[in-house]
Amino acid sequence: MSTFGNYFRVSTYGESHGRSVGCIVDGCPPGLQLTEQDIQPQMTRRRPGQSALTTPRDEKDKVEIQSGTEFGITLGTPIGLKVMNEDQRPHDYSGGGKNIDAFPRPSHADWTYLEKYGVKASSGGGRSSARETIGRVAAGAIAEKYLRVAHGVEIVAFTSSVGPEHLFPATKQYPTASTNPAFLDLIGKVTRDDVDSFLPVRCPDTQVCKNMEELIGEFRDRKDSIGGVVTCVLRNVPSGLGEPCFDKMEAMLAHAMLSIPATKGFEIGSGFGGCEVPGSAHNDAFIKTPAAPPGTLPDGVSAPAKPRLTTKTNNSGGIQGGITNGAPVYFNVAFKPPATIGQAQETAGYDTSVGTLEAKGRHDPCVIPRAVPIVEAMAALVVMDALMAQSARQATRGLLPQLPETIPLMEQSSNLLSRAS
Amino acid sequence: MSTFGNYFRVSTYGESHGRSVGCIVDGCPPGLQLTEQDIQPQMTRRRPGQSALTTPRDEKDKVEIQSGTEFGITLGTPIGLKVMNEDQRPHDYSGGGKNIDAFPRPSHADWTYLEKYGVKASSGGGRSSARETIGRVAAGAIAEKYLRVAHGVEIVAFTSSVGPEHLFPATKQYPTASTNPAFLDLIGKVTRDDVDSFLPVRCPDTQVCKNMEELIGEFRDRKDSIGGVVTCVLRNVPSGLGEPCFDKMEAMLAHAMLSIPATKGFEIGSGFGGCEVPGSAHNDAFIKTPAAPPGTLPDGVSAPAKPRLTTKTNNSGGIQGGITNGAPVYFNVAFKPPATIGQAQETAGYDTSVGTLEAKGRHDPCVIPRAVPIVEAMAALVVMDALMAQSARQATRGLLPQLPETIPLMEQSSNLLSRAS
Amino acid sequence: MSTFGNYFRVSTYGESHGRSVGCIVDGCPPGLQLTEQDIQPQMTRRRPGQSALTTPRDEKDKVEIQSGTEFGITLGTPIGLKVMNEDQRPHDYSGGGKNIDAFPRPSHADWTYLEKYGVKASSGGGRSSARETIGRVAAGAIAEKYLRVAHGVEIVAFTSSVGPEHLFPATKQYPTASTNPAFLDLIGKVTRDDVDSFLPVRCPDTQVCKNMEELIGEFRDRKDSIGGVVTCVLRNVPSGLGEPCFDKMEAMLAHAMLSIPATKGFEIGSGFGGCEVPGSAHNDAFIKTPAAPPGTLPDGVSAPAKPRLTTKTNNSGGIQGGITNGAPVYFNVAFKPPATIGQAQETAGYDTSVGTLEAKGRHDPCVIPRAVPIVEAMAALVVMDALMAQSARQATRGLLPQLPETIPLMEQSSNLLSRAS
Amino acid sequence: MSTFGNYFRVSTYGESHGRSVGCIVDGCPPGLQLTEQDIQPQMTRRRPGQSALTTPRDEKDKVEIQSGTEFGITLGTPIGLKVMNEDQRPHDYSGGGKNIDAFPRPSHADWTYLEKYGVKASSGGGRSSARETIGRVAAGAIAEKYLRVAHGVEIVAFTSSVGPEHLFPATKQYPTASTNPAFLDLIGKVTRDDVDSFLPVRCPDTQVCKNMEELIGEFRDRKDSIGGVVTCVLRNVPSGLGEPCFDKMEAMLAHAMLSIPATKGFEIGSGFGGCEVPGSAHNDAFIKTPAAPPGTLPDGVSAPAKPRLTTKTNNSGGIQGGITNGAPVYFNVAFKPPATIGQAQETAGYDTSVGTLEAKGRHDPCVIPRAVPIVEAMAALVVMDALMAQSARQATRGLLPQLPETIPLMEQSSNLLSRAS
Repeated sequence: MSTFGNYFRVSTYGESHGRSVGCIVDGCPPGLQLTEQDIQPQMTRRRPGQSALTTPRDEKDKVEIQSGTEFGITLGTPIGLKVMNEDQRPHDYSGGGKNIDAFPRPSHADWTYLEKYGVKASSGGGRSSARETIGRVAAGAIAEKYLRVAHGVEIVAFTSSVGPEHLFPATKQYPTASTNPAFLDLIGKVTRDDVDSFLPVRCPDTQVCKNMEELIGEFRDRKDSIGGVVTCVLRNVPSGLGEPCFDKMEAMLAHAMLSIPATKGFEIGSGFGGCEVPGSAHNDAFIKTPAAPPGTLPDGVSAPAKPRLTTKTNNSGGIQGGITNGAPVYFNVAFKPPATIGQAQETAGYDTSVGTLEAKGRHDPCVIPRAVPIVEAMAALVVMDALMAQSARQATRGLLPQLPETIPLMEQSSNLLSRAS
Repeated sequence: MSTFGNYFRVSTYGESHGRSVGCIVDGCPPGLQLTEQDIQPQMTRRRPGQSALTTPRDEKDKVEIQSGTEFGITLGTPIGLKVMNEDQRPHDYSGGGKNIDAFPRPSHADWTYLEKYGVKASSGGGRSSARETIGRVAAGAIAEKYLRVAHGVEIVAFTSSVGPEHLFPATKQYPTASTNPAFLDLIGKVTRDDVDSFLPVRCPDTQVCKNMEELIGEFRDRKDSIGGVVTCVLRNVPSGLGEPCFDKMEAMLAHAMLSIPATKGFEIGSGFGGCEVPGSAHNDAFIKTPAAPPGTLPDGVSAPAKPRLTTKTNNSGGIQGGITNGAPVYFNVAFKPPATIGQAQETAGYDTSVGTLEAKGRHDPCVIPRAVPIVEAMAALVVMDALMAQSARQATRGLLPQLPETIPLMEQSSNLLSRAS
Repeated sequence: MSTFGNYFRVSTYGESHGRSVGCIVDGCPPGLQLTEQDIQPQMTRRRPGQSALTTPRDEKDKVEIQSGTEFGITLGTPIGLKVMNEDQRPHDYSGGGKNIDAFPRPSHADWTYLEKYGVKASSGGGRSSARETIGRVAAGAIAEKYLRVAHGVEIVAFTSSVGPEHLFPATKQYPTASTNPAFLDLIGKVTRDDVDSFLPVRCPDTQVCKNMEELIGEFRDRKDSIGGVVTCVLRNVPSGLGEPCFDKMEAMLAHAMLSIPATKGFEIGSGFGGCEVPGSAHNDAFIKTPAAPPGTLPDGVSAPAKPRLTTKTNNSGGIQGGITNGAPVYFNVAFKPPATIGQAQETAGYDTSVGTLEAKGRHDPCVIPRAVPIVEAMAALVVMDALMAQSARQATRGLLPQLPETIPLMEQSSNLLSRAS
Repeated sequence: MSTFGNYFRVSTYGESHGRSVGCIVDGCPPGLQLTEQDIQPQMTRRRPGQSALTTPRDEKDKVEIQSGTEFGITLGTPIGLKVMNEDQRPHDYSGGGKNIDAFPRPSHADWTYLEKYGVKASSGGGRSSARETIGRVAAGAIAEKYLRVAHGVEIVAFTSSVGPEHLFPATKQYPTASTNPAFLDLIGKVTRDDVDSFLPVRCPDTQVCKNMEELIGEFRDRKDSIGGVVTCVLRNVPSGLGEPCFDKMEAMLAHAMLSIPATKGFEIGSGFGGCEVPGSAHNDAFIKTPAAPPGTLPDGVSAPAKPRLTTKTNNSGGIQGGITNGAPVYFNVAFKPPATIGQAQETAGYDTSVGTLEAKGRHDPCVIPRAVPIVEAMAALVVMDALMAQSARQATRGLLPQLPETIPLMEQSSNLLSRAS
């Protein structure tokens, strides 16, 4: 369905050619300062055609809050969000465009939507259009604001590969990025500003970024396309989040990421590479949490204390047994090459007859850079929902009497409930 | 939470040392022939210590149906399933075992469960134990039975890598298994009997299986452990399944797979390798569905007709736009090396003091073979739930009047609703 | 939360003074002809101040479809619906209005919203305003259209009491309306047009309607208010709907009705009066369903066949064991007297100091007539959701092989799946 | 479905003649002291045939905890609960019992279950049997324990009418119980012990109880049955519970109550009678909460502080705008006369032929007394689920910075989060 989350629940709507796209965010904590200015930046980051962020005031994809706030404060009631569509006309059947209508586009959703719904939106991708992600990004920006203000959570995604060009290729010494100190160093401090200083590719390394840009250019020139990987890190996520057994943190992240259009894979922590590392090297030994935690909090934020233990290495990606342990959470998301290409493709039509399909106009040869804010948004939604579930548990537990001393290894955990003002 | 699915809803319970483990399956279609004999085989396949399936009658992990059937027929009411635990005594704190209690085991769930719940099961993994998967496998066997009887769906998982030993390693010619004809041939016909003829490793290739077995033996001898990948294929899945935008088929599969203990990654179709294949090669062109579909149906099964179109290649893994297209669905799941190893590990205790932890007894150096039926079970649950959602849509749509001819490209889809008796 | 339904899922948003109010309807069957004209009539019926329906073209509360349809046909994707608010300014705090702000209004939601959210919308009722029901009525109109077209379902609500003035008062002979032939006759045939011919009270009896109108007038003159009861009947609801054990049809109807602002009670069938009828009289004996069912279907509608049996009496209100039996479903909903009255009321302020509160302006002394379309809408949502759940069950069951004859009393039920074209 | 609640989630299973009945309780706060002894008393109270509670040790309906606790402490993981069935044989078809099988029992679920599922349990009520309520009562006992320990919540239900015999009949002076001081006095202090001192009827008034007992005896002698009303009060429910707009507290209570077998109606606060009380009398004026709250807390319990305001009267039944206000919550539930009676009834068989049905053996002429613990259990489940939702809100809100003073009427609400140790 088009609803995500149980406590912090997002419902989206919208096709590419209807009046508007948008969402309802239900369950947002009341008392959060929130205006359109908190949401717009991520909307703008996901827009197409941003070779640089120089446009002083981008009027496109402008989000409007319909409800749920007053005087810039959330009321705790559903927040309605809306973005107008520019082109609201459904496809015109009377004239041309015959060819594209006769053929389901290969590796697009045309054919399967028709199999599923028995009726097909005339226009572009309809509901399967990338425009659907606007609602996700808007909702994610709200979750992210809460997480940042209340817990100092920082969510940063970046391009880590385009085709065969990798930011951290596997080596003999470092079979996975999780074992590579340079990678761990990067995810410990990279910011969105860093990432956006590498526009348009959003890969935070000058040389690799340049290589990727050239590679994308080659594919553009060939009227072809190429995929890649987005890596995302979440710092300062409180420990204890994730709801086993089915709604483990990595399971919800995987669900969220694979729901983004054009995704093909998900890895948490050491990922597929971790299968090849012996357990003795893969296990993350515990150490006492250093006094000054890595990752400084933003101004004015006073997050709950870190847990007493952390791990020396982080092949776990900040999650053990489906539950966050306070270390940085990081994961990879694979995106396939865009299906729309300028090259002619032989394929079959709805009537099974064979023909040739050729997309007109300019097409994006690589979606990875634009996927960055979408990945961040979905990550924020997952963490926010898990946070509320855990908050309910801790708050209800906190009212129970202390248990007798005879029960071993028990402590009144309350990392989520206090605010050091 | 411990509930999975919306229409076909499974709730599980059970720790390793309580009275029993089990589940409730709610929403199973009535009128399905079902007894314990339909469930037990998969329970037995997931049991530890099965160097071969020679035990004539295995009395362990015996499943008992509590409700929901009568005279071997499902009533449509909740099906209660229960498996007794053999060792129901919680850990004894009075005597020894001090050391293991003082240290959270590295890369286990001990530490995070305590962070989350503030109270720790004394015994082994408690809820995070692999014993939790019994309920999943039992429920999955019911879903699978329905899918097989009603649609001829075949679900087969197998070991495709152990450590660096791969069944289909990436090559220059075949950068991903999805582009390798030998892989496509295998997933088009491999059966569970094939897979189980390669016990204990369950990798359906004589030489690779032998290599894997040796590799696992080496890790066992070193008191170390190693991870690997399970590949799963689903044949004859009806087209039209999956609920965009958030509950796409691959999103639900990813959620399901990453909820299995010890998983680190998920790939659908071409997966991460697909990121490096140009769009022109990655796109799956449509062709007319061949008259005789590959994959014969079991005796007596008469599945609904295949859709008129299929794809020439299958980099999509049988899913486009989040919706099945009738082609085989296949995916990979990464499992990390088991965290429990016999080697001594330096780590910190709950009280942050440093010490050494060393697991006693024999430990499984590789969980991949036993994960096979768990992956199959979770896949069945995902498909069954999606099938019911789509059945509701098609059935309600089927009662609407035909639409006027002027609406293009519309057909009354009904692949799920008829049974050619 | 602000989401209702599992399969036909409605999420609403909106305060009285935000930009707009509206909803998202997710899960609507594709292929349904739907435009704003299908929704607007019920929106108009719920508007205030309709002493008669003489306004030729009412431009207020105009609903706009944002998504989910194309060329007037539903796509199966989420349907976004929006109604602009006329007064979008939050309450001005700088000047007057001090008094009403210092006192939580008695029997309003002012106090409890502040207790719950810790922040209070400045303006009128905010989310607790009757304006919130706009989203319900819009969504209900879509459900209702499907139910009417596919099954000939007719949903008609009417005013059955205002204060002590009852349409069917309990008598010695007829202790409950369910035992009164005049009541059963009325609910067997009353239409919305009938009900609206008794505007503004919507009680379908000339004399009782006149009495009620006078009574309401008296309360208006006294600056007081009065409650009443809305009765609702649903004809041609298919048998087999309702999901025991927790989501029985009457449980879902009760949930839906008690979620409407100002409601105090719910009765199904014989209701509270039925407690006083002996079982021997209360039991509804079965009879063969008459050849010509009461309640003719609208033009062009060919609903599935009625079940073979029906009940002679209908104290059950069309529901037995939580499941519809094909007989008319009917129920009562109690509405309290509106809390806003012109009389001065002594009460305490937020600061606990005692004072006097007096509402200015004209206030509606009785909400019953306007509640009629809201009750109808919520009833439609409940039935639609239950219909989809049952459709999934029947459709999946329909693909199973016939069971052996030795199982008694089993039949392949398929009342929802066929359409006699 | 057979799942109730979102955060404190109960799933039940079980027919009358399967191996066992039971439930899984997911989401229970960890750290709660819980053994079978906390659950058994309510199980015993719901058992049939308890003319007095003299049986020293009742071995019937003995509940067994399967999981989720260790050393008598909840782990926060799912709690599996099981009660064996005594008679596990499905109905024998070979011999007699022909007649009862040929006829669906009037006003029972036989007919509708067959319409819904297309297959019928041979035995008694199957899933629609009263035995299904065992899982509810067991789960409710856990919720209740938490609510009592953490908040001092007291939940007491009692019989308030049997047939025409009412504990608080409507009078000219007191048109509803909500306006009757004797009623308000009773619900302010009545305990379960009080109620059980009036066994077997459970109506806490010597004379009325005697009248009811005689009335029930008359119906028994006539082989007839009679219905009645259960009234339930919840004291010390924290303010702020209930999730508008759809999951208002009264909506969830109505859902829960109407899901109990044989229920016909629900009233909150003044209920249907409140429709006849003028708004000026019905409105509950606010007053400062008295220093010593009515309803002393149990030993060792230190509930969060009462809100500063309460209401002078309580026609609202402790709920305003769908949210609890801290005053006692009370409601009525109507139960119909039991459908199984010894009298011969003319009815139609499954094959539509007319015949006579006559139940053998002794049947309970009135279920009201046994319904008392079931009503209490469902009420506990509703409040517990709402409490967890609100706890998540308050806990997440509590970490936000204080808002500027310029926003009026805002306070950091925290009634759920502190424990005065």
